[in-house]
Amino acid sequence: MTTSRRQAASRRSRRPVRTGRRAGDSGTREAILDAAREQFAERGYEGATIRAIAARADVDPALVHHFYGTKERLFAAAMQLPFVPSEVITAALADRPAGQPAGAYLVRTALSIWDSPGVRDAFVGILRSALTSEQAALMLREFVSRAILGPVASLASGTDPEQTPFRTSLVGSHMLGLALARYILQLPPVAAADADALAAAIGPTIDRYLTGDIGAAAAGS
Amino acid sequence: MTTSRRQAASRRSRRPVRTGRRAGDSGTREAILDAAREQFAERGYEGATIRAIAARADVDPALVHHFYGTKERLFAAAMQLPFVPSEVITAALADRPAGQPAGAYLVRTALSIWDSPGVRDAFVGILRSALTSEQAALMLREFVSRAILGPVASLASGTDPEQTPFRTSLVGSHMLGLALARYILQLPPVAAADADALAAAIGPTIDRYLTGDIGAAAAGS
Repeated sequence: MTTSRRQAASRRSRRPVRTGRRAGDSGTREAILDAAREQFAERGYEGATIRAIAARADVDPALVHHFYGTKERLFAAAMQLPFVPSEVITAALADRPAGQPAGAYLVRTALSIWDSPGVRDAFVGILRSALTSEQAALMLREFVSRAILGPVASLASGTDPEQTPFRTSLVGSHMLGLALARYILQLPPVAAADADALAAAIGPTIDRYLTGDIGAAAAGS
Repeated sequence: MTTSRRQAASRRSRRPVRTGRRAGDSGTREAILDAAREQFAERGYEGATIRAIAARADVDPALVHHFYGTKERLFAAAMQLPFVPSEVITAALADRPAGQPAGAYLVRTALSIWDSPGVRDAFVGILRSALTSEQAALMLREFVSRAILGPVASLASGTDPEQTPFRTSLVGSHMLGLALARYILQLPPVAAADADALAAAIGPTIDRYLTGDIGAAAAGS
């Protein structure tokens, strides 16, 4: 970003960008990402705000918006995710060919996302944090609920809305376990299986969790 | 263990217990567990041997057998697991009431094991290691394959044996994900759900993975 663009971003905000402490965009971006990591870690995903992150980075909130757009994009950048989950998932779901069952399609989509560069490392880093600190687990929980299971919930339309959180959390549990078994443990059959085999085996499960009979005893959600 | 019992253990072995370096049973046990952790970490679960662990701890292999019985028991002690997985699972499966579907029973059994004291901490510790080192991931993979999925494989009897590893790895993936979502992420609906709700929802999935139709495209195993 050039100085003139930053000045333009600054003019769109109520207060001027504070300058002087850091030289250049990369320093400013780094300061914002540091501040974001601190805020997300301290307040969780829901509790962190662009305003508080900007204050901690000593920049104008408009600049944070200008660089990153949304809180989720800022989170993705701070956590070094190679993509913005809700955007990728929403786009993929919109592209689903008519007639293709949601479950198998979701499994294939997840596998193709996970197999792209940088994803495994980001997953390992975030999961390791969640295993180390309650606060990081909270952050990941809120992020998974909102950015990943949020878009998936649209696939449960037509069912009792009160059951939707339980349904999507079953989907999330299964997909998390698949990622763990395939990429971290590397359990041979699941790690070596191709997308067709996994979609055929797991797809119908996901369909049932989304819209099928999941038992009379619906969990409180 | 008293001195006379240790001597008895020693007499059963070919070479005498080496003594002098450590005082008392607790020191010897600690040395064996330290050696076990090192060997499992270096060679994986399959590669580690009681003999090599004993050599590293500077004790007779018979003493390790005497203290811990089997490699799995030694592993469980070294990893501070509050139980020996294959023994608990095998015993639970033998106790399954006639007519109760295997899937729901397996989910209930897993939940009751996971809810017992010390299990969550052990799970966190082992998983964190697996996320930190390839070697620890290998160790966990081999252990899960042998001690957990081994007994579960008996539930897939009557199906094509070539598919069994894929079937049990699907079960393992799902259950790992459930543990992760319930105890680490604490995703609200899955974390708060009672055993009835989870058994009703997930049980039929496990049954299908074990003995049902999992698609024509069987994964290479």
